[in-house]
Amino acid sequence: MYHLSRIKLILQYKGTHYHGWQVQPNGVTVQEVLQKALSKIYDRKMNVMAASRTDSGVHALGQVCHFDIEEGGATPPLQRGLNSLLPPDISVIAAEPVSDTFHAQKSAKKKIYEYRIHNSFLRSPFLHEYFWQIPYPLDVKKMKMAAKYLVGKHDFQAFCASGSSVKTTVRRVYGIVISKSEGDLILITITGSGFLKQMVRNIVGTLTDVGRGKILPLQVKKILKSRDRRKAGPTAVAKGLILKSVIY
Amino acid sequence: MYHLSRIKLILQYKGTHYHGWQVQPNGVTVQEVLQKALSKIYDRKMNVMAASRTDSGVHALGQVCHFDIEEGGATPPLQRGLNSLLPPDISVIAAEPVSDTFHAQKSAKKKIYEYRIHNSFLRSPFLHEYFWQIPYPLDVKKMKMAAKYLVGKHDFQAFCASGSSVKTTVRRVYGIVISKSEGDLILITITGSGFLKQMVRNIVGTLTDVGRGKILPLQVKKILKSRDRRKAGPTAVAKGLILKSVIY
Repeated sequence: MYHLSRIKLILQYKGTHYHGWQVQPNGVTVQEVLQKALSKIYDRKMNVMAASRTDSGVHALGQVCHFDIEEGGATPPLQRGLNSLLPPDISVIAAEPVSDTFHAQKSAKKKIYEYRIHNSFLRSPFLHEYFWQIPYPLDVKKMKMAAKYLVGKHDFQAFCASGSSVKTTVRRVYGIVISKSEGDLILITITGSGFLKQMVRNIVGTLTDVGRGKILPLQVKKILKSRDRRKAGPTAVAKGLILKSVIY
Repeated sequence: MYHLSRIKLILQYKGTHYHGWQVQPNGVTVQEVLQKALSKIYDRKMNVMAASRTDSGVHALGQVCHFDIEEGGATPPLQRGLNSLLPPDISVIAAEPVSDTFHAQKSAKKKIYEYRIHNSFLRSPFLHEYFWQIPYPLDVKKMKMAAKYLVGKHDFQAFCASGSSVKTTVRRVYGIVISKSEGDLILITITGSGFLKQMVRNIVGTLTDVGRGKILPLQVKKILKSRDRRKAGPTAVAKGLILKSVIY
């Protein structure tokens, strides 16, 4: 007989060189790399559960995950030990014991994502891994008007990747904040109770269609009501998306 | 008979995946990639001359170079054409015709370099390609005191990489500005008439020795006078260095 003890980690990663979070046969994933490092520490097969299964190429500033160990693993050496085993594009910024009722995914109350647009015809070698470069001008005012229609509890099926199987496509979006900084950087912060597959990127793609004048802000309300993915805009590229934090 | 016309380019690049600026047999360099792209455009072998031969792994926000073409090449399509041929970690941010008396290296009056330190025991997946991560605390006040001894016209041989052959090791440093931002980021901006091989990185390595209390600020004055490379501190890692701009 032994007791299990649950550990919560907060992770940062640059998603560029990973096939997303979740273990899969066709490429290296963040979960796989983390589990291998944990297996070295605990000398057995380890499984971690994350708050969000970020897609291939998506980054994280505050991904949260948990795993169980046998009683007694101390925490500060765990963080240092893990970081010494992990590659430089994955970093453990916090590690702490939590109650076994804590669940990284199920206990999450809110998730905050940031989407980054470099609105310039000039490329930047320093931004291109973290920003969607859009060369045509975007009208941020119109994008803000359109975003308002998406805030609240709605059926977001029109913004859900096809082929996704979930019980319900209803989600609550607490807020969408769009800000323009340093001239040509546009940051879109979306806070929600949870998100459907590619929902943030489909919302951003649709908002950029508004920003470039392809559709009117009011059209976004109609797209939402249609529950038809084909009516919404393109899926914004993965590299512009970052999971900022998960709130419990 | 034909007339030559000189073109000046301003370049940005992320140096991570390059063996520096200058063409060399053992790895891909920025100069090589740029010359190949230009050769495609002008359909002949092209040579470019840069203001600064940045080392392997060093970045540039404002590298300047020039090359000669036969009369009549228009400029705006050149920039777009080049960027479409260059990889995303190299970008041409300006291209303009200049007088044939302009020389990217010889006409340069000042060069401004920035060195970036992430003074934290926590790694960042987003900073690690552009910052030297130093886990022990640095006393910025002492570093500023030490830096003052290096400003002015001096023989910088103590800060010159061994094996370098130059006519004179005298250079003028116009200023060294050290600032701390966002808590754990330290930026060191050095402006000079020109720099010896690894001079900026050797200065930064010596200043960090001061910052961590290994040597006193006044010691830097003695190191400078000694003209002995072995007296100075370690060479700061390349990835923290960025050529910000060249002034003509």
